[in-house]
Amino acid sequence: MNASTPSAALAPEDVNALMERLGQAARRAATTMAAASTATKNAALLALAAAIRAQAGPLQEANARDIAAAEAAGLAAPMVDRLRLTPKVIEQMAEGCEQVAALPDPIGEMTNLRRRPTGITVGQMRVPLGVFGMIYESRPNVTIDAASLAIKSGNAAILRGGSEAAHSNAALAALVGQALAQAGLPAEAVQQVPTTDRAAVGRLIAMPAYVDVIIPRGGKGLIERISREATVPVIKHLDGNCHTYVDAEVDLALAVAVTDNAKTQKYSPCNATESLLVHTAVAPAFLPAIGAVFAAKGVEMRCGPRAKAILGAAALPGAKLVDATEADWAEEYLAPVISIKLVDSLDEAIAHINRYGSHHTDAILTTNHPNAMRFLREVDSASVMVNASTRFADGFEYGLGAEIGISTDKFHARGPVGLEGLTSMKWIVLGQGEGRS
Amino acid sequence: MNASTPSAALAPEDVNALMERLGQAARRAATTMAAASTATKNAALLALAAAIRAQAGPLQEANARDIAAAEAAGLAAPMVDRLRLTPKVIEQMAEGCEQVAALPDPIGEMTNLRRRPTGITVGQMRVPLGVFGMIYESRPNVTIDAASLAIKSGNAAILRGGSEAAHSNAALAALVGQALAQAGLPAEAVQQVPTTDRAAVGRLIAMPAYVDVIIPRGGKGLIERISREATVPVIKHLDGNCHTYVDAEVDLALAVAVTDNAKTQKYSPCNATESLLVHTAVAPAFLPAIGAVFAAKGVEMRCGPRAKAILGAAALPGAKLVDATEADWAEEYLAPVISIKLVDSLDEAIAHINRYGSHHTDAILTTNHPNAMRFLREVDSASVMVNASTRFADGFEYGLGAEIGISTDKFHARGPVGLEGLTSMKWIVLGQGEGRS
Repeated sequence: MNASTPSAALAPEDVNALMERLGQAARRAATTMAAASTATKNAALLALAAAIRAQAGPLQEANARDIAAAEAAGLAAPMVDRLRLTPKVIEQMAEGCEQVAALPDPIGEMTNLRRRPTGITVGQMRVPLGVFGMIYESRPNVTIDAASLAIKSGNAAILRGGSEAAHSNAALAALVGQALAQAGLPAEAVQQVPTTDRAAVGRLIAMPAYVDVIIPRGGKGLIERISREATVPVIKHLDGNCHTYVDAEVDLALAVAVTDNAKTQKYSPCNATESLLVHTAVAPAFLPAIGAVFAAKGVEMRCGPRAKAILGAAALPGAKLVDATEADWAEEYLAPVISIKLVDSLDEAIAHINRYGSHHTDAILTTNHPNAMRFLREVDSASVMVNASTRFADGFEYGLGAEIGISTDKFHARGPVGLEGLTSMKWIVLGQGEGRS
Repeated sequence: MNASTPSAALAPEDVNALMERLGQAARRAATTMAAASTATKNAALLALAAAIRAQAGPLQEANARDIAAAEAAGLAAPMVDRLRLTPKVIEQMAEGCEQVAALPDPIGEMTNLRRRPTGITVGQMRVPLGVFGMIYESRPNVTIDAASLAIKSGNAAILRGGSEAAHSNAALAALVGQALAQAGLPAEAVQQVPTTDRAAVGRLIAMPAYVDVIIPRGGKGLIERISREATVPVIKHLDGNCHTYVDAEVDLALAVAVTDNAKTQKYSPCNATESLLVHTAVAPAFLPAIGAVFAAKGVEMRCGPRAKAILGAAALPGAKLVDATEADWAEEYLAPVISIKLVDSLDEAIAHINRYGSHHTDAILTTNHPNAMRFLREVDSASVMVNASTRFADGFEYGLGAEIGISTDKFHARGPVGLEGLTSMKWIVLGQGEGRS
């Protein structure tokens, strides 16, 4: 392994020259990647899987340097753990490459070819976007996620991992370059920015000549800053303030089970339910039942006045009942906390979700078909669900096979983004010498 | 007709308050439009067509005020003509609304619904983007184009036409509002910014809370400025430096006819060919033939040295032969001028197009199937064509039925943008009480 040690701070002109060089190399490599056959791309992915397994030792040595630096810097233990390339994480990275190799190749798909009255045949062909930039924090395995999706989708990528994982990322990127070269593809198709200088990020997000889209993964602060400063499109994932709405007509046992899963199966993911809306007609029967579950699991309930009255009257042992403030309706807790509100109608539920939600994932629990259909149509979120846990909003659960990120935007890709989100559809015209009249 | 006269300059705080008011009203209206039935939307479109015909007189009176102002300001005659609402333009606007009413409704389409191993069914539903802002110059009929596409696609729109057409646009927008109200839809679904103050544009492109996408139509300067300053996505249409490449194996008569059409059928459209690449093997036979056509039509030929040698030797009467400079390869002439270059291979042709082209529309003329397929795959343009004139790159020619613009971007919509470009696909999940394990 010949991964060079990443440099820290550079002179501004050096950052510009470096990023210009990376950009040019990526753009050149993107042309070759776009034309690469499925077999060649899969060969690179399988070579990468093999290299990750074969080089587990050197990878862990590079990783040990990051871990030591993180511990010396006094990073909290859970943060240090996220950095760690354990044997399990290494095997998962290798398997991930094999899974991406097994996915169908999205590139070259031709659709909707139709003959026009003029004689020409018009349709669309799926092609790579070109070059994507990815900015991420902490976990070094994201380097392999991004590299494998770039290879399969025929794109080039410029990766900028967190400084705390710099040695691990450099070692992984070196393996990616070798696997690409081994398959006869340009090693520059996936490049790791070889400096932790923050000015490099500023350049990466402002090179429209070389970078077609930026995908940030990390905290909300990072994503907001990048969205604000980028001069190229950003596939961004902001809050997940997800709602579960329990309709007037509902299977009560189903409603309790699904709401429980949506809130408590895991507290930290973006698709966990943060706010529970309950129709007044069903609240007296439903709220004490779900309240008992939340009380047993230690979930704090931030309630509107009518919900609090019902839950209070139920006198549930251990229940943590708190008065909700206006801010609670818009809050993403990512914790054992849920806001609860009664609504008098489906209209009120939809209006509340569209106003306070983050357009991520929202579910209705109902047995009423027209209400289910109205909720699907009218809730303006990336994922809308009927009688299912919001926790299902995920590229793997949706069958995408891989996920480069989740988009809370409406433009281009929405919700979980798989390989197709890294492609565009161009128009193709097949003629026999037609001219326009 | 009660169109109010648009105001010119406003105090900055008034512009901000005005745009905030328009934005809030648009966002409110968008919710209703998204849920509107196809029949209701079509009723509004047909009411608008009828109103345009019935109010032709008052429309022409409002238009006469713009014409008088333009003539008093000394605007060039062709610019004044573009402003004019002639009986023919008025009838075309009415027919345009009827045509959009006849198009299939894109909203609500559900696709790819598939059962997952967990039991949930996952698919996608097409929904409106929400609110689009449109900024355009001169021709007032764009007001009706934009309004009709907004109505059919279930979006709300905020329109900002050119100041020189302010009275015409205000009169047309008043009709749109009346037609919407007549169909039971919110009149605020389509609003014309009621001031020609330029600060209003600056606000319109920087209100992500109220506007989901900006579509500018006008000169390159306008579009570049808007793209630079917008904080929301922009569907932008920059240059059309389109190429026709004549391959080594080609039907010569077809090549002459298609190249002639691509260059000379009309000089001003963005999809006219601006650069001709010719394989060296066919140049001695092809160039004198197309050169004779260009000479007869007065098309100036800016040639690389090898092309000039062949065309010079052919001694074509009236031929205007000029040495091409490096700048010519990247130039969009929109005039009877074409650059001509010899290439030694398909690879050289593709590399030249990807380097100097504007990723708009490029065509190969060939009888060789593998070359045709490589060109389709590897030329990185919104439209790629085989044996057809680049002039076909157009929403109507492609069968979209209507065109809100042409995108030279890869992100979201690419090439001609019809109703679907104003929509997004959200994920829908249909369950029976499933939770995630």
